[in-house]
Amino acid sequence: MRNIKLVLEYDGTNFVGWQTQASGRSVQEEISRALEQILQEKPNLIGAGRTDSGVHARGQVANVRTNSGIPLKSILNALNGLLPEDICIHSAEDVPEEFHARFDAHNRMYRYFIALQPLSIGRQYAWYLKFDVDIGTMNTVAGQVCGEHDFRSFCKAESSLPHFRCIVTHSFWSTTATGTVYEIRANRFLHGMVRTLVGTMVDIGRGYTPVSGFMEILNSRDRRQAGMAAPAHGLFLEEVTY
Amino acid sequence: MRNIKLVLEYDGTNFVGWQTQASGRSVQEEISRALEQILQEKPNLIGAGRTDSGVHARGQVANVRTNSGIPLKSILNALNGLLPEDICIHSAEDVPEEFHARFDAHNRMYRYFIALQPLSIGRQYAWYLKFDVDIGTMNTVAGQVCGEHDFRSFCKAESSLPHFRCIVTHSFWSTTATGTVYEIRANRFLHGMVRTLVGTMVDIGRGYTPVSGFMEILNSRDRRQAGMAAPAHGLFLEEVTY
Repeated sequence: MRNIKLVLEYDGTNFVGWQTQASGRSVQEEISRALEQILQEKPNLIGAGRTDSGVHARGQVANVRTNSGIPLKSILNALNGLLPEDICIHSAEDVPEEFHARFDAHNRMYRYFIALQPLSIGRQYAWYLKFDVDIGTMNTVAGQVCGEHDFRSFCKAESSLPHFRCIVTHSFWSTTATGTVYEIRANRFLHGMVRTLVGTMVDIGRGYTPVSGFMEILNSRDRRQAGMAAPAHGLFLEEVTY
Repeated sequence: MRNIKLVLEYDGTNFVGWQTQASGRSVQEEISRALEQILQEKPNLIGAGRTDSGVHARGQVANVRTNSGIPLKSILNALNGLLPEDICIHSAEDVPEEFHARFDAHNRMYRYFIALQPLSIGRQYAWYLKFDVDIGTMNTVAGQVCGEHDFRSFCKAESSLPHFRCIVTHSFWSTTATGTVYEIRANRFLHGMVRTLVGTMVDIGRGYTPVSGFMEILNSRDRRQAGMAAPAHGLFLEEVTY
């Protein structure tokens, strides 16, 4: 059976997230509807990362198995023609039948954008902080995130996973023209993990929580110890690698 | 009398433009309403450039004369608190009473953003071209725009100005991560000028009009000879200098 890998972008502003929900507009549903029209089959679209409501993606990956013989280029063009303007497909490629966008991913990279001055243009794509933060301090903490840890403290409370361990290979803040951006790469991410890490690091960067408090929060394995989740609209799923 | 200079940004997507109109939401009206609430006076807000519907600004300048003694910092904070999120004020400064944001401007700089690959994130801020253009060719033409010329061919037909001469000091295309951007600086701009120049240069860049045709269009002083105006949402008023 043929298996097609898609790399895609979406503006999460007007979506309930990647995954199809009982109500509301999801990315998975929009793409599935377009695929059904093109392939003339009910598709089973598998996404690499189930982004939450309001989260954006520049490099989401999905795969779909099909019996259709339509050329890749035609599928790509038809998808971009049918999809609403807040989703676009960057590439379509034939992959082995066993390829699974979610289970085969080696790691994912997210970025979280913070604006440190008021902004109107692009306000949908960054969290504006009305207070100062010390980026050096936030970078000290970001370094402590690296390595293999149990991230239960940074996972939405209702999760019932077999384990909460993640291996983080990159975690750092850098400066942008109008603020700062956090980049994190890991083998897996828990529900709400990046946003809760960002919220907690911002609390430390503004002096609400001492730097020494971070490892205590991490080791507590208690979601109530961490800070509030940063808002969804600053978060981007940038890349998934296989 | 006190005179306050404001530097401001807006996302033009949901505005009928800078200037107050009989109907529709204008930037001038929104800021005037907030100023009236703060200053407790009916303000006469003068903008440097009357941007059209859908055009964005990162460096619009305006001035307002007032008898109020409220400190600048308080005016700035109150404005940003009262204004809708698609307008923000970057700075407020006391200037001499005779300062006039429009008449005293030495030059204005606009940028026009073009995307050369499909985009969802930031689609409000760039014109996506579904065809290829030769940026080298477009730059040859951009160079011919420099200097003092009569730009009647690039001005909205209904204009009844005393003259159509503008002195262009910079005009060039450069590449961005996802496309190309046109930058133009001049002592004055006619209605629709940047968008019509961009539309005409894109026609040349895709081979619809020969390069040699550009000076013919310019010299014809006839709006019907130029190309279509590029869409508003790619255009940014970046800077006004005094």
